[in-house]
Amino acid sequence: MSTTVHPVLLNGCWAKSQATTTFQAVNPTTEETLPGVFPVSPWDEIDAMLQIAADTSREMRGWPGSRFADFLEVYANEIEARADLLVETAHAETALPKSPRLKDGELPRTTNQLRQAAQSARTESWRVPTIDTAAGIRSMLGAMGPVVVFGPNNFPYAYNGIAGGDFAAAIAAGNPVIAKGHPCHPETTRIFAEAAVAAIHATGMPSGLVQLIYRTSHEDGVRLVSDHRIGAVGYTGARHTGLKLKAAADGAGKPIYLELSSINPVYMLSGALKERTASIADEFAGSCLMATGQFCTNPGLVVVPTGELGENIIAAVAERFAKASVGTMLAEGVRESFSRGIRTILDAGASLVTGGQPGGGKGISFQNTLLRVSGRQFLANPNVFQTEAFGNGSLFVLAESTAEMVEIAELLEGNLTGSVYTDTAGSDDADYVVIEKALRTKVGRLLNDKMPTGVAVSSAMNHGGPYPATGHSGFTAVGFPASVTRFGMLQSFDAVRPHRLPPVLQNKNPGKVWRRINGDWSQADVT
Amino acid sequence: MSTTVHPVLLNGCWAKSQATTTFQAVNPTTEETLPGVFPVSPWDEIDAMLQIAADTSREMRGWPGSRFADFLEVYANEIEARADLLVETAHAETALPKSPRLKDGELPRTTNQLRQAAQSARTESWRVPTIDTAAGIRSMLGAMGPVVVFGPNNFPYAYNGIAGGDFAAAIAAGNPVIAKGHPCHPETTRIFAEAAVAAIHATGMPSGLVQLIYRTSHEDGVRLVSDHRIGAVGYTGARHTGLKLKAAADGAGKPIYLELSSINPVYMLSGALKERTASIADEFAGSCLMATGQFCTNPGLVVVPTGELGENIIAAVAERFAKASVGTMLAEGVRESFSRGIRTILDAGASLVTGGQPGGGKGISFQNTLLRVSGRQFLANPNVFQTEAFGNGSLFVLAESTAEMVEIAELLEGNLTGSVYTDTAGSDDADYVVIEKALRTKVGRLLNDKMPTGVAVSSAMNHGGPYPATGHSGFTAVGFPASVTRFGMLQSFDAVRPHRLPPVLQNKNPGKVWRRINGDWSQADVT
Repeated sequence: MSTTVHPVLLNGCWAKSQATTTFQAVNPTTEETLPGVFPVSPWDEIDAMLQIAADTSREMRGWPGSRFADFLEVYANEIEARADLLVETAHAETALPKSPRLKDGELPRTTNQLRQAAQSARTESWRVPTIDTAAGIRSMLGAMGPVVVFGPNNFPYAYNGIAGGDFAAAIAAGNPVIAKGHPCHPETTRIFAEAAVAAIHATGMPSGLVQLIYRTSHEDGVRLVSDHRIGAVGYTGARHTGLKLKAAADGAGKPIYLELSSINPVYMLSGALKERTASIADEFAGSCLMATGQFCTNPGLVVVPTGELGENIIAAVAERFAKASVGTMLAEGVRESFSRGIRTILDAGASLVTGGQPGGGKGISFQNTLLRVSGRQFLANPNVFQTEAFGNGSLFVLAESTAEMVEIAELLEGNLTGSVYTDTAGSDDADYVVIEKALRTKVGRLLNDKMPTGVAVSSAMNHGGPYPATGHSGFTAVGFPASVTRFGMLQSFDAVRPHRLPPVLQNKNPGKVWRRINGDWSQADVT
Repeated sequence: MSTTVHPVLLNGCWAKSQATTTFQAVNPTTEETLPGVFPVSPWDEIDAMLQIAADTSREMRGWPGSRFADFLEVYANEIEARADLLVETAHAETALPKSPRLKDGELPRTTNQLRQAAQSARTESWRVPTIDTAAGIRSMLGAMGPVVVFGPNNFPYAYNGIAGGDFAAAIAAGNPVIAKGHPCHPETTRIFAEAAVAAIHATGMPSGLVQLIYRTSHEDGVRLVSDHRIGAVGYTGARHTGLKLKAAADGAGKPIYLELSSINPVYMLSGALKERTASIADEFAGSCLMATGQFCTNPGLVVVPTGELGENIIAAVAERFAKASVGTMLAEGVRESFSRGIRTILDAGASLVTGGQPGGGKGISFQNTLLRVSGRQFLANPNVFQTEAFGNGSLFVLAESTAEMVEIAELLEGNLTGSVYTDTAGSDDADYVVIEKALRTKVGRLLNDKMPTGVAVSSAMNHGGPYPATGHSGFTAVGFPASVTRFGMLQSFDAVRPHRLPPVLQNKNPGKVWRRINGDWSQADVT
């Protein structure tokens, strides 16, 4: 082993890894290997972290939300202090544009998430404190135990296992986190860990609050998510790997929150296309090609009417796809997977409108690609035509009738989002009603006249959806306090003596906590 | 096949079953076979129900909660109109006492649950309507799809697949139910179905809202819970069967809410025993022997100090156990399982204090049984000593010290409840703090100076707990609106035009719905 292998973050210390294998990331723009050498952590290392996390979880039982809020806020500051370095590093590791994407978009969004999570922890609003004075029973959500967070390749900040939404939510709920970085951007992840350590020290939190490994074997990943010492798991990434982790966690009775895949259907109705084909084509091309299509909410399936309207929008989008520059993809594996997805859809009978070949941009790239298929073909083979091709491409489906559009919606798998474009005058209203009825239960977030990319960190956001988009349609990975509640266990106190109750359940409201008292929400004391 | 085989409830009609095998229930008191012959439904019958349920679910999309509330309330009335028949029938099928248990306890509790569920549906309070005016995003919980509910043997009313808590919650969330009755009390279940049909007719609900099978093969049960047409599953029953269903549902990405097992630890601290050993012994014996110990919340494990205090409480309980009449058990299978559990604990080194033999009561019975073991023995073999012996028995653990009591708590599996008995003067307070800290995260409901049997239908109730008590520690099977939220999917509306929003998300509050508007709870309109 080289002496330059980066250590792992174990119990607040940068500890030499026991790894016998290592990896290095690749700069997707230059296709050159980056200098940092990172360890593939063996089981013993993970086992040690699990024990530290379990002990830390025990130590923190009953701590007020303000302590976690303090940490999250200082952590956000520490991240901002490292902004330039994070932007340079993430750009080198992911090829995502420095500005506006990394510097002005994703990084502020990430620190905003950490601060919103802090707010949830500080106000204790995520706990759903519930008081039934007649029965003498009170309940709230409490910490669940150590949370393991796996971050994806496509958001080096906002979904990073050590800085993203799942991380923020797990900490806000009072749990230690074992973060597993994504091997595409280990140095970015390492910088976050430096910031986290600084925040731990500054706020006097336990050194086991945040731990980090960069990579492990699939076998040890499975072992990790089914270990008896953990409370829950958050995973964002490829469906194949996610389902393996899900099977393991489910088998051990560990809640696992997943974001697996989504093709984000967009319906463009006749009135809308009559009214504004050009502007819809602009919106669509912008959304579909943004970040080289590497968004979970990328619009990968578009349903339009046959005939002139359908042909016109396809032509307009094709023109924009051909003209637009071709972005660099995150990694060779992403390009291969995209290429395979496109090939699968073509082999099933779709036609190529534009693109379809590797290359066209700097470094790892693939042409902006547009495919088309008839509604009848889609309905004959709905599963194959819903293959996720994660990247800068999309499949248009030309439907003969509103009924066929509805039938397509009824056969959709679960998705994160679904959009419907309608005209402003109301001529699409009747079609909207029947299509919405079918589409609504297939998607977590329904949009009107808006593309699905761009996930606001809103209390009403649902970044989630029915299986296989996620593992449970009741939960969202983005938005506060809803995302925090995922990492809490329901704790009921029955006839527990008043002075022994947690502060948020005592008669006197410890702050301005919203509590459900005898069925009504209130910030008042119990009288 | 005999012509007297009871039909199944398919799409609102009593349809002749295609069953090739049948079963009959047994009267546990007389040990005689009861006359009703019931079908073991084959897959084709279940498949037909699934299609009807899926169609019904589609038909009901977007319906207001008031329609489901009307049904639930009329159903409660229809049940009350059949009270005498239900009491006679359930007594014959389960041996549970007619009064107070069935007539004055469980039946009113069941209709109360249905009415509380109706209230949740009518006020839409379970939907957690959330409005973010700045982001233009609004969200709520909506129906999830057909729910399959498996009822257990021990509550022929309150947890019945066609009348109990999971049923009420699933309907309140706007979902059709396929109920699977328990084979121990099919005639009771049939009477509920008659009442449900009457309520469906009276309220003009779709005939596919409630369907019923009495029994099916294990293989078809697995197929049922993993069918793509269902939304979720509720199961209360034995761990072994529940885990098979869980694996199948998890694999298909279907949420499954389980109640599997619990031994409900009770800690009796020194001060409490010094103060009131006799009254604690009364409480304990009453709780442990109630309904012949066949409660999910039956106190099966008691931790007491060694020495005189521990010996005295054991002697006092033993005396009460020996004097108390021995109840009749629900079924031969329950007695066998209880006997097996007792044997396992004895074989692991526990001592028999009293009881331990089959018989002693009318019909199917087993002596009131008390076992004891040292804390050291328990700690050396914690899993075996946590074997659930479901019935009129309990295991006392004699701990050397407070530290040993804490260590025992840290090794407990997930349970529904945990109780701590302390003295009134405060001498147990220091011990309480350390024991509570360990016990709190192992149980869904923590009690002080109160036995765990008796589960109030309260908004703050948690009838749930960490795995393996249930499948997810964030959910409760009892209490409104929390139990209803389990059967809802999160639906976010992003930039959806105002007139297209569901009524509860429009600016004008359609009633007095509690909504979270820009972070604060309110019953007002959005201004």
